[in-house]
Amino acid sequence: MSDILIIHGPNLNQLGTREPDVYGSQTLADINAELEVKAKDLNLSLTIIQSNSEGDIVEAIQNTSCQGIIINPAAYTHTSIAIRDAIAGTDLPVIEVHLSNVYQRESFRHHSHIAPVCVGQITGFGAKSYHLALDAIGNYIA
Amino acid sequence: MSDILIIHGPNLNQLGTREPDVYGSQTLADINAELEVKAKDLNLSLTIIQSNSEGDIVEAIQNTSCQGIIINPAAYTHTSIAIRDAIAGTDLPVIEVHLSNVYQRESFRHHSHIAPVCVGQITGFGAKSYHLALDAIGNYIA
Amino acid sequence: MSDILIIHGPNLNQLGTREPDVYGSQTLADINAELEVKAKDLNLSLTIIQSNSEGDIVEAIQNTSCQGIIINPAAYTHTSIAIRDAIAGTDLPVIEVHLSNVYQRESFRHHSHIAPVCVGQITGFGAKSYHLALDAIGNYIA
Amino acid sequence: MSDILIIHGPNLNQLGTREPDVYGSQTLADINAELEVKAKDLNLSLTIIQSNSEGDIVEAIQNTSCQGIIINPAAYTHTSIAIRDAIAGTDLPVIEVHLSNVYQRESFRHHSHIAPVCVGQITGFGAKSYHLALDAIGNYIA
Amino acid sequence: MSDILIIHGPNLNQLGTREPDVYGSQTLADINAELEVKAKDLNLSLTIIQSNSEGDIVEAIQNTSCQGIIINPAAYTHTSIAIRDAIAGTDLPVIEVHLSNVYQRESFRHHSHIAPVCVGQITGFGAKSYHLALDAIGNYIA
Amino acid sequence: MSDILIIHGPNLNQLGTREPDVYGSQTLADINAELEVKAKDLNLSLTIIQSNSEGDIVEAIQNTSCQGIIINPAAYTHTSIAIRDAIAGTDLPVIEVHLSNVYQRESFRHHSHIAPVCVGQITGFGAKSYHLALDAIGNYIA
Amino acid sequence: MSDILIIHGPNLNQLGTREPDVYGSQTLADINAELEVKAKDLNLSLTIIQSNSEGDIVEAIQNTSCQGIIINPAAYTHTSIAIRDAIAGTDLPVIEVHLSNVYQRESFRHHSHIAPVCVGQITGFGAKSYHLALDAIGNYIA
Amino acid sequence: MSDILIIHGPNLNQLGTREPDVYGSQTLADINAELEVKAKDLNLSLTIIQSNSEGDIVEAIQNTSCQGIIINPAAYTHTSIAIRDAIAGTDLPVIEVHLSNVYQRESFRHHSHIAPVCVGQITGFGAKSYHLALDAIGNYIA
Amino acid sequence: MSDILIIHGPNLNQLGTREPDVYGSQTLADINAELEVKAKDLNLSLTIIQSNSEGDIVEAIQNTSCQGIIINPAAYTHTSIAIRDAIAGTDLPVIEVHLSNVYQRESFRHHSHIAPVCVGQITGFGAKSYHLALDAIGNYIA
Amino acid sequence: MSDILIIHGPNLNQLGTREPDVYGSQTLADINAELEVKAKDLNLSLTIIQSNSEGDIVEAIQNTSCQGIIINPAAYTHTSIAIRDAIAGTDLPVIEVHLSNVYQRESFRHHSHIAPVCVGQITGFGAKSYHLALDAIGNYIA
Amino acid sequence: MSDILIIHGPNLNQLGTREPDVYGSQTLADINAELEVKAKDLNLSLTIIQSNSEGDIVEAIQNTSCQGIIINPAAYTHTSIAIRDAIAGTDLPVIEVHLSNVYQRESFRHHSHIAPVCVGQITGFGAKSYHLALDAIGNYIA
Amino acid sequence: MSDILIIHGPNLNQLGTREPDVYGSQTLADINAELEVKAKDLNLSLTIIQSNSEGDIVEAIQNTSCQGIIINPAAYTHTSIAIRDAIAGTDLPVIEVHLSNVYQRESFRHHSHIAPVCVGQITGFGAKSYHLALDAIGNYIA
Repeated sequence: MSDILIIHGPNLNQLGTREPDVYGSQTLADINAELEVKAKDLNLSLTIIQSNSEGDIVEAIQNTSCQGIIINPAAYTHTSIAIRDAIAGTDLPVIEVHLSNVYQRESFRHHSHIAPVCVGQITGFGAKSYHLALDAIGNYIA
Repeated sequence: MSDILIIHGPNLNQLGTREPDVYGSQTLADINAELEVKAKDLNLSLTIIQSNSEGDIVEAIQNTSCQGIIINPAAYTHTSIAIRDAIAGTDLPVIEVHLSNVYQRESFRHHSHIAPVCVGQITGFGAKSYHLALDAIGNYIA
Repeated sequence: MSDILIIHGPNLNQLGTREPDVYGSQTLADINAELEVKAKDLNLSLTIIQSNSEGDIVEAIQNTSCQGIIINPAAYTHTSIAIRDAIAGTDLPVIEVHLSNVYQRESFRHHSHIAPVCVGQITGFGAKSYHLALDAIGNYIA
Repeated sequence: MSDILIIHGPNLNQLGTREPDVYGSQTLADINAELEVKAKDLNLSLTIIQSNSEGDIVEAIQNTSCQGIIINPAAYTHTSIAIRDAIAGTDLPVIEVHLSNVYQRESFRHHSHIAPVCVGQITGFGAKSYHLALDAIGNYIA
Repeated sequence: MSDILIIHGPNLNQLGTREPDVYGSQTLADINAELEVKAKDLNLSLTIIQSNSEGDIVEAIQNTSCQGIIINPAAYTHTSIAIRDAIAGTDLPVIEVHLSNVYQRESFRHHSHIAPVCVGQITGFGAKSYHLALDAIGNYIA
Repeated sequence: MSDILIIHGPNLNQLGTREPDVYGSQTLADINAELEVKAKDLNLSLTIIQSNSEGDIVEAIQNTSCQGIIINPAAYTHTSIAIRDAIAGTDLPVIEVHLSNVYQRESFRHHSHIAPVCVGQITGFGAKSYHLALDAIGNYIA
Repeated sequence: MSDILIIHGPNLNQLGTREPDVYGSQTLADINAELEVKAKDLNLSLTIIQSNSEGDIVEAIQNTSCQGIIINPAAYTHTSIAIRDAIAGTDLPVIEVHLSNVYQRESFRHHSHIAPVCVGQITGFGAKSYHLALDAIGNYIA
Repeated sequence: MSDILIIHGPNLNQLGTREPDVYGSQTLADINAELEVKAKDLNLSLTIIQSNSEGDIVEAIQNTSCQGIIINPAAYTHTSIAIRDAIAGTDLPVIEVHLSNVYQRESFRHHSHIAPVCVGQITGFGAKSYHLALDAIGNYIA
Repeated sequence: MSDILIIHGPNLNQLGTREPDVYGSQTLADINAELEVKAKDLNLSLTIIQSNSEGDIVEAIQNTSCQGIIINPAAYTHTSIAIRDAIAGTDLPVIEVHLSNVYQRESFRHHSHIAPVCVGQITGFGAKSYHLALDAIGNYIA
Repeated sequence: MSDILIIHGPNLNQLGTREPDVYGSQTLADINAELEVKAKDLNLSLTIIQSNSEGDIVEAIQNTSCQGIIINPAAYTHTSIAIRDAIAGTDLPVIEVHLSNVYQRESFRHHSHIAPVCVGQITGFGAKSYHLALDAIGNYIA
Repeated sequence: MSDILIIHGPNLNQLGTREPDVYGSQTLADINAELEVKAKDLNLSLTIIQSNSEGDIVEAIQNTSCQGIIINPAAYTHTSIAIRDAIAGTDLPVIEVHLSNVYQRESFRHHSHIAPVCVGQITGFGAKSYHLALDAIGNYIA
Repeated sequence: MSDILIIHGPNLNQLGTREPDVYGSQTLADINAELEVKAKDLNLSLTIIQSNSEGDIVEAIQNTSCQGIIINPAAYTHTSIAIRDAIAGTDLPVIEVHLSNVYQRESFRHHSHIAPVCVGQITGFGAKSYHLALDAIGNYIA
């Protein structure tokens, strides 16, 4: 049974309580609960973290003993080369997800430092983006 | 039972025969066969077209009676405002997919005219990108 | 009696049925009917085409035996050098029209490949843009 | 009977006497006389001013009691945010006109600060540009 | 008792009558009346002008015998090097104010030619921006 | 009595000890003491933090129970989308302040990721910038 | 005996009849006749097409059974990633030719999407450009 | 005896009183007096104006009956297309002068809208720039 | 005996275990051991830290009692103005080092926010870059 | 019998000895020997120089008594306006050649200062590029 | 009696023989002869060189024992930082001259690496530009 | 015993005599004398040249029989692709050095054409930069 690290980036701990028109009304706990169910179906186990700190996310990537990573880097998508380097420094498959369609938002959200070092990117499906990523990573490491 | 239009853009008819290091070795027929199986599982029916012509893709979008669209616009991702306008002009949910991780390739492939008028984008998972999109669109129109 | 070629570019066949807030609620047939009336007043005859294909528009320009052209290049305004070259290659007066005020929309709609090879440009008056262009071209070739 | 304010921007008082290859050989008085005739046909009355001063044009827009404005901002098209703000601050329909096809000239003439706050733009038909604008504004406020 | 020159730039004479959603519903006279009250509290006297003319604002700055200047350059913020040079040519402290938060508006409003030659900038507080500036300049020249 | 959160960003704990020509000679403790006095006058209470960590500032914004925020984001002004998103995710009024006139310094200091999600910005008045912001926020939430 | 596919891009069917100052006075038929003679000398046979359609050119490249391609992409040089991808997807040697010296014309003609996937480029020698390309490709596949 | 129009642009009336480190300590009156002497030597008469108004400078150029113009457009060098158009609209030789070496100052001072429509430009020699220009224009119209 | 602070930035704790083709196969502990030997030779003592956190690096710089700093900012080279400001706020000599030749890598690695506030930069010599920096700083503070 | 000047630019004297993967394994002497044979066939005589000095190449162009020039400007293609001006200053036909396909290399090699002042450009055919150019120039001056 | 070094840059030895429409019909010898006459009037002696080599011009500047320099850097104006550094490294006054109005020519001729390290620049007066520069430098070192 | 070629670029022959605030007060002879001492310690022999000519530096690199190169390209750092190509064409290790910290100077000095083809770069340590480079190259070729 493979273990997958799910990293929720900055401000995602506020999900469901703030800006529901952009990010939906589910809380992060709700999303995580659904992901646990989905993971069980796929015969995957999950390690889930949320952090608002770039350095902590770098270290989560460095220290994981999981077999794959799903990351929603949120604001750090656009500003963090440190997270990019951490991903590039691991041999694990990494999938980048976004809740909202970033290509419909401000132009500074159209560029990702992270995407070029990932297997792929899934963008715009709300919490469903994580589900698709679970599917994809399960398939990838199978 | 919802019907989904799948549009394969320019040069995708060559899949499996050319540049397998970039696009994989499956033929488009192989991919389509697998998608039919997956669609049946999701209780969706499929209408599948491939075209190398921007105008024909515009018209396929205009004329469809499907309930959703999955499009791999390939080269037209980066150059076609006409396809963008056709998508914007329909009320259907549209999902953009790419086989390869375009963010690892030439910089002119990093910009999509199409993404801002889609529900979301799935990039980099090979033929699996279409499977994930089927899942997403099935979920979306459910 | 001079004959004028009117070219409606991509997606204009959808007029009146899609995005009425941007393009108004008249159908293309409605607009064409009004233009025929206006043309008769100006002692002009009309040849009207609509095409979603860049190549077909190029050939319509190459093959016309009309005395002037009114073109709404729509999305191809911003992406087609082929249409520009076709216009540059004819000696006929050409007028570019737009239904919406493109200068109020996305920045990629602010640049026209077509305008520098036309007599002039009329933008933002809805179907009335064509009427003004008919007037202008009638005056030009008088 | 509606009254229309026509604003001729900087250097247009020189029309007919200087650079006739660019701007034609009619004087501004000639153009105005023709416009008065055309206006009468359309059952419009005209208030016509010419100014070389950005501030005076701002104030003409602020102070008008007309029902619509036709403005040829000339050089201020490309440099005046003050005139743009004055137009944005009125509820009147405003039409931007240019005698020459600015898209055939220096690249700094391709951008208009004014167009996004107007109903539309008519460019390249010589003095006929004003006639078309009269027609358009008469139609608009009808 | 120090005298402060307050300069209201182009279109600010329209305050309260036009675009109240952007600039609020107070008239300039209302604002000035409140500023006189505030100034008295701060033991300052005021000289207040409004002008739509770049040249007149240049000369107001050149000719003042005040001890400090508060300027809302409005549209000239983004286009006037002449006003910048006039400010640079005086030894007086100058404070730039804006009613609206210009950083939430069109990108051409994000750059100020004026700010680098001022003591500081206060942006986004409606008429309160002037009050804060009065406080700041009173403090500065104390 | 409203409570206001004051956030001093990175390196501001060094105030008064380093680069006094740019930032003045007051220590942060001095500034805070003066702010407490000023707040009492305005019938406001203060919660004051200083942090050099982007993530900690994000969390301070997320977790506050204050009625308004005054933030000097210092270097993070120009690099942090995470702080921007944290501010956008709260319903509180936020005011951005800077001690120095950033528009007189290196060009990379002229752009603020933070300003578009704040009520307003006060720049260039040294420690007085905070006093003005207290005034503004007291007025705003009154 | 090797067969070479010669592709004449959009508007080249107009050669000799339009803009002779830019493209010369020979018709495309004249050029083709001369190329047949030259090919015979080089012991090559020719398949010659002209198309104004991007999609048709893509398919001509996909479907050819020739041993090499000479392409004058004309306007599509600057706008077609689909043709680039079609060329990249074949193992054949491809040579890009231009009649006019594109580097003496508008700046948008200075960039070629096609050149990086060709063996080489020959520009500026009128119909002679094709002759040189025939020579080059004969040499290349010898 | 030829008459030369000398136009001193915005803020030059402040010469000698403000920013002497940039512009020198001579007043404009001093400079003008010296120019009158120099002109007499060259058998030229002078008409000298100074204006802070873009529109007034436009009109001075339009209305002059002189045989040549020397203009120091100061701040309007970089922002006025109206003055450029006024110069382009006259047949007179025009020489642009600057007191300071604008190429040693802020980058926005490196671009001149005026230079392309002048005979030449003389920059950096203080009041001596005008003397050299007088010499040049005397020579030019001789 | 002077004390030198050596700061290893984000992801350098992974040295020797990941991406050895880019960064070499030595571990950070190996490098540090060699540096201790080298330092002893130069009569310097070392304080060595590694951090993945921008804020922690800022504070390490603020709090050091060393006489000089050698910093490999890694990813923060390109994104951290906070570290730049921390360095600018200290009077100590600082030397920037990089293991790899950043000028041979992605273009976003060519710009350093840090270099302008350092004494100098040493790039591309693997672990030897630190040795050279030790030599340089020993020489500098001697 | 016409004489043609062939100019080999900087570093081409190293051909065949360095970077054979980019430039092939023939020496410059080998290439020149082949060109002499080809020239004899075309009834042309050759004057061949190689230089690493921009100034010497300028003078070779100025001083030639040949009837045409073939130049491979190598690195100076991208940096030398002096060579461009020397070519523009002669009435001779000049052809630019490159051994490698510069459009497949670094982006700074995509721009040529030289191409706009040449008859045409031949790129990417190795030593064969020179042969094609000989053919072209023989044809041109015939 | 002061000695002035006059440096004529690349291709100026061709004056009068090539491109007379751009540079006039005088030869460099003619110009030099006139300058000797003018210099004698100004009580200056001249050392005149012409070079097509960037390095030689650098050394002429380094080695001169003159009291001032007049340089027409021609093509090197836009490409040579070495000449800029040579000028910056001398304490002599240097004046940059151009025969043609470079601001009317290609945009790459609008930027000068040389101007910021000169006293001033004189542009557009043909050979008269040198005369004016002689006047200016005589005045400067007087 | 390895031999190292040291190349001092343009204007470095002026060291110690000009701009000592930027480049220090040592002469090039002083620096070279110290380098000879240092080299002896490292068991290296030196060949030292200084040149102001781009072509001569290209040839020095081509013709050397040394085992490594240390180059201070000075102004040619930013403008010479020819020197870059010469370095790329040799198999020798090359180290780029700069006396001053170029990242603290004009922005055009921040880009190096040379760095990507070198082992590494050492910047900002005055003459000590060369000493560090000697150390590094001795280590590299050991």
